[in-house]
Amino acid sequence: MSTRVGSSIEPTAEQLDGVRFDEHGLVPAIAQDLDGAVLMMAWMNAETLRMTLAEGRMVYWSRSRQEIWRKGDTSGDHQLVHDAYYDCDADVLLFRVEQLGKGACHTGEYSCFFRRFGPDRTAPAPSAG
Amino acid sequence: MSTRVGSSIEPTAEQLDGVRFDEHGLVPAIAQDLDGAVLMMAWMNAETLRMTLAEGRMVYWSRSRQEIWRKGDTSGDHQLVHDAYYDCDADVLLFRVEQLGKGACHTGEYSCFFRRFGPDRTAPAPSAG
Repeated sequence: MSTRVGSSIEPTAEQLDGVRFDEHGLVPAIAQDLDGAVLMMAWMNAETLRMTLAEGRMVYWSRSRQEIWRKGDTSGDHQLVHDAYYDCDADVLLFRVEQLGKGACHTGEYSCFFRRFGPDRTAPAPSAG
Repeated sequence: MSTRVGSSIEPTAEQLDGVRFDEHGLVPAIAQDLDGAVLMMAWMNAETLRMTLAEGRMVYWSRSRQEIWRKGDTSGDHQLVHDAYYDCDADVLLFRVEQLGKGACHTGEYSCFFRRFGPDRTAPAPSAG
């Protein structure tokens, strides 16, 4: 278990109030590593968004388990937050993270996007360049 | 209006059948440029996913207008598809695209993620490095 911690981000009240959650109280959260690779997309509710910003590590809401999902608590694959963005409609979030452990994906792959449409099914995680 | 076209991708039947759409028949689609910048996230249904892969350009489903949204048809800001990925649960899609025109965002910004949580509100679109 890593002992490294991320840095907390203090949002303005206006920013937090402006986030638009869907009918389930959730907002998509994209995690991208510092080299540009998109690691995964999962969901946050208002509480786990606040936890993520305060703790500086990704905390999702698990839709399948209907519980707080502090990424890496069981696997060690924590994601430390460097920057957090929201889109023009404030209904999608983007986090630039440092991926710890073996990767983001429960399959053991580094990125959850390890399969490509087309006959050549597997491909390296997309990154910059 | 650009006359450049993207290259079509021929998915396998198994890949297409495996995509898991939500209760509204939609799946999140992330567009990332070739330098690693995440441009936007919008939604596709089965029909616009097929159109995107066949035409090699991003075709979303507009939830607000409830209609097919062929990105760039009115703005000229087309997105040419280079690669298309699906995640481990096959319920999120990632497209590496070439962004034409002035950018992805209707505000005129290059990326829709041009605002950052924290007191320093605006920030360049996150990209690699």
